[in-house]
Amino acid sequence: MTNPTNMPKISIQRIEHDINAIARFGFNEDDRGVYRQGFSENDMAARQWLRDQFEALGVPHRMDGAGNVIGRFGPAHDDGEIPAVVIASHLDSVPAGGIFDGVLGVVAGLEVIRTMKDAGIEPSYPIEVIATSEEEGRFGGMLGAQAMTGHLTREWLENAADEHGLALKDAMATAGLDYLQALHAYRRPESLHAFLELHVEQGPVLDVEKTTIGIVEGISGVFKWMVKLKGKADHAGTAPMHLRSDALMGMVDFAHEIPRIIDEEGTDKSRITIGHVALKPGFPHTVPGEADFTIVGRDLDEDVMKKLADACRKVLESISRRHGLKFDYEQMSWLAPAYCNDEIIAMVERNTKSLGYSYKIMPSGAGHDVQFFTGLTRTGLIFVPSVKGISHAPDEWTHWSDIERGAQLLCNCALELACGAQQIAPQTLPSDAC
Amino acid sequence: MTNPTNMPKISIQRIEHDINAIARFGFNEDDRGVYRQGFSENDMAARQWLRDQFEALGVPHRMDGAGNVIGRFGPAHDDGEIPAVVIASHLDSVPAGGIFDGVLGVVAGLEVIRTMKDAGIEPSYPIEVIATSEEEGRFGGMLGAQAMTGHLTREWLENAADEHGLALKDAMATAGLDYLQALHAYRRPESLHAFLELHVEQGPVLDVEKTTIGIVEGISGVFKWMVKLKGKADHAGTAPMHLRSDALMGMVDFAHEIPRIIDEEGTDKSRITIGHVALKPGFPHTVPGEADFTIVGRDLDEDVMKKLADACRKVLESISRRHGLKFDYEQMSWLAPAYCNDEIIAMVERNTKSLGYSYKIMPSGAGHDVQFFTGLTRTGLIFVPSVKGISHAPDEWTHWSDIERGAQLLCNCALELACGAQQIAPQTLPSDAC
Repeated sequence: MTNPTNMPKISIQRIEHDINAIARFGFNEDDRGVYRQGFSENDMAARQWLRDQFEALGVPHRMDGAGNVIGRFGPAHDDGEIPAVVIASHLDSVPAGGIFDGVLGVVAGLEVIRTMKDAGIEPSYPIEVIATSEEEGRFGGMLGAQAMTGHLTREWLENAADEHGLALKDAMATAGLDYLQALHAYRRPESLHAFLELHVEQGPVLDVEKTTIGIVEGISGVFKWMVKLKGKADHAGTAPMHLRSDALMGMVDFAHEIPRIIDEEGTDKSRITIGHVALKPGFPHTVPGEADFTIVGRDLDEDVMKKLADACRKVLESISRRHGLKFDYEQMSWLAPAYCNDEIIAMVERNTKSLGYSYKIMPSGAGHDVQFFTGLTRTGLIFVPSVKGISHAPDEWTHWSDIERGAQLLCNCALELACGAQQIAPQTLPSDAC
Repeated sequence: MTNPTNMPKISIQRIEHDINAIARFGFNEDDRGVYRQGFSENDMAARQWLRDQFEALGVPHRMDGAGNVIGRFGPAHDDGEIPAVVIASHLDSVPAGGIFDGVLGVVAGLEVIRTMKDAGIEPSYPIEVIATSEEEGRFGGMLGAQAMTGHLTREWLENAADEHGLALKDAMATAGLDYLQALHAYRRPESLHAFLELHVEQGPVLDVEKTTIGIVEGISGVFKWMVKLKGKADHAGTAPMHLRSDALMGMVDFAHEIPRIIDEEGTDKSRITIGHVALKPGFPHTVPGEADFTIVGRDLDEDVMKKLADACRKVLESISRRHGLKFDYEQMSWLAPAYCNDEIIAMVERNTKSLGYSYKIMPSGAGHDVQFFTGLTRTGLIFVPSVKGISHAPDEWTHWSDIERGAQLLCNCALELACGAQQIAPQTLPSDAC
């Protein structure tokens, strides 16, 4: 299995064709962005397109109650439930998104099935290619993955709404789905053999380091704070510097400490970001009386996250005393890190080496469907480079040669998981040396 | 003249009555704030009230083409034009303003006339009490003062509008004024003997230092920049700290240098304020790709202002290089400092000492009508304490005892200027020792 000449070769032409085909669902000529938000008409049309592909291949397919589209290749259910090797990603997009995000993982899965069929391979474990629903967050995000892993509640389903106030259940009804059926999408862990996802990195690391493959060790945990510093709004001319309680300067002194906080308490995987700042009153000639801002902290180690959060709190408290500010914060969320499976990581690494691709073991700073499966089955997540790290934007791009390598690696890993030691016909495969 | 027992005593009761009377024009019961923006119905009603007071006193009065209300006590115009001792401030307010800002100076001027009349004083130079128009900035600010000092142009008058888009000329027409007549409000310097203004400090210095009188040496010059730092918006999870071009962190590093910039290049009269910040895209989970913010710098010395501005530019340039940002700025305005007259400052100081009041020679960080007169006549500006420095807000307050002392000082100064060496009947005057 580790000899690359023994593996069937995926077709980058078919993948490119499929990615471009899906891009047309929701493509906007004006900003060149994709608008295929979860449960929208465009999203449902793309899902139907995928089902048509399964149909054409003779692969049994269905849409579960959460809107996940599932194609199953290999041993049938009536052979007794054999656990599946799941290859999943999503088909929905953010508004004005790119053409690869999510789509790549689904299309590559479809190509894995086609490649196996072309090679006449009958896997011991079924391959399930799943296009998960509402991953991007129109209604909160990763809805399909949460449904399959038992994280949804009826209450949540009934209260979720998009930013325009449209209720999830109404959007689902328009898409022909009964929201209560989402609670039937749950997958028992015994039905899963492993979970693989191929995704664009959505960050600059692989591109900067000229590395083809990212083997993800886990999804960073993340905390989000809403911080409020209250001082005193003053006339910017009449209030001497030493008599001010300038809320912005409190925020500034805190932000200035972020590099030190990470140096002292964090790791090279730590991130602390202030992405949103609102000043009151926000007038040029008025000393800001209030600064509201967000802190988003991340690390792959929950203990490090706690140390980062403690350090932020300590700095904010001391700076507030120094500037005569009132400091309040609300922790909006705290998500623990989710780790991919060591066996899968080792297997992906071995297959990457066999293919001769450069690679890097790395965390994922962004969330992915895979994180909900980490507790239920063995999971693996593979990245390919995003040019300049751009994602969630029309300029999102990944070179086709990197797509080809990522898809081949996915295929080899899926074959190893689904076929075990079975011999496969030799073909020429792409390598970094090409 | 320096003997306090020789001076007629002003009536704080009449002043309190008048301030409360004017407060009713535009007072809002809900927020307890005053809404008397320039040329509004409330503003014009307050101006009419003032004219009624002049009328009752038998003092000739008029409204000039810019809406300035002018009462003239003393030698009549037909004695040949004798230059006037002007006591001026404004009657308009910011939205939700306080009851003292501007009003104090007008009412105190009215009280000076009443006091002189009561004491049977006939001044050698006429006293003109002027309620200037649109000082607070509904249409740009200090309109009446600019009209009297020749700073208005027809083009400006025809293009000015308030924040709702209402044209100045239409607002003036509604108030019964022809905007073109504002250009007739110009006062030749020969018509002015001196210009005095009494105002609440609108800052915390006198209150914090427990000082009764601020003798203003000048109005700080002010520059305003719109700064734009452009970096790269990135996913806050996927972009490692060292690969970011975080526009906010550029702003933060600049702001952190402000105290050093003032220590190195400024004076105790220097102010640098960031009052407005806008981030793009401004999402918690996105590294800010752009930070737009204002810098407002002030000092009483224009050379110091230049040094502060140079230092800001230098720091912004070097920080932009460090963070990989593009730095642009636009200088929205540069107003040079305006200095009060040394003779007047000395005279006010001498009269303050005679009255036994504590005082401080200080700059004004806020703009005032007086600044437009500094080039044309001898000017003086007197401050009384603002409790906690609050102004432009319903909580604006100045203790009546401080109002009394400020008005008495104004009266004594006006008498000295208008009467020369003339003897005045003795009365008991308020002193800090009371």
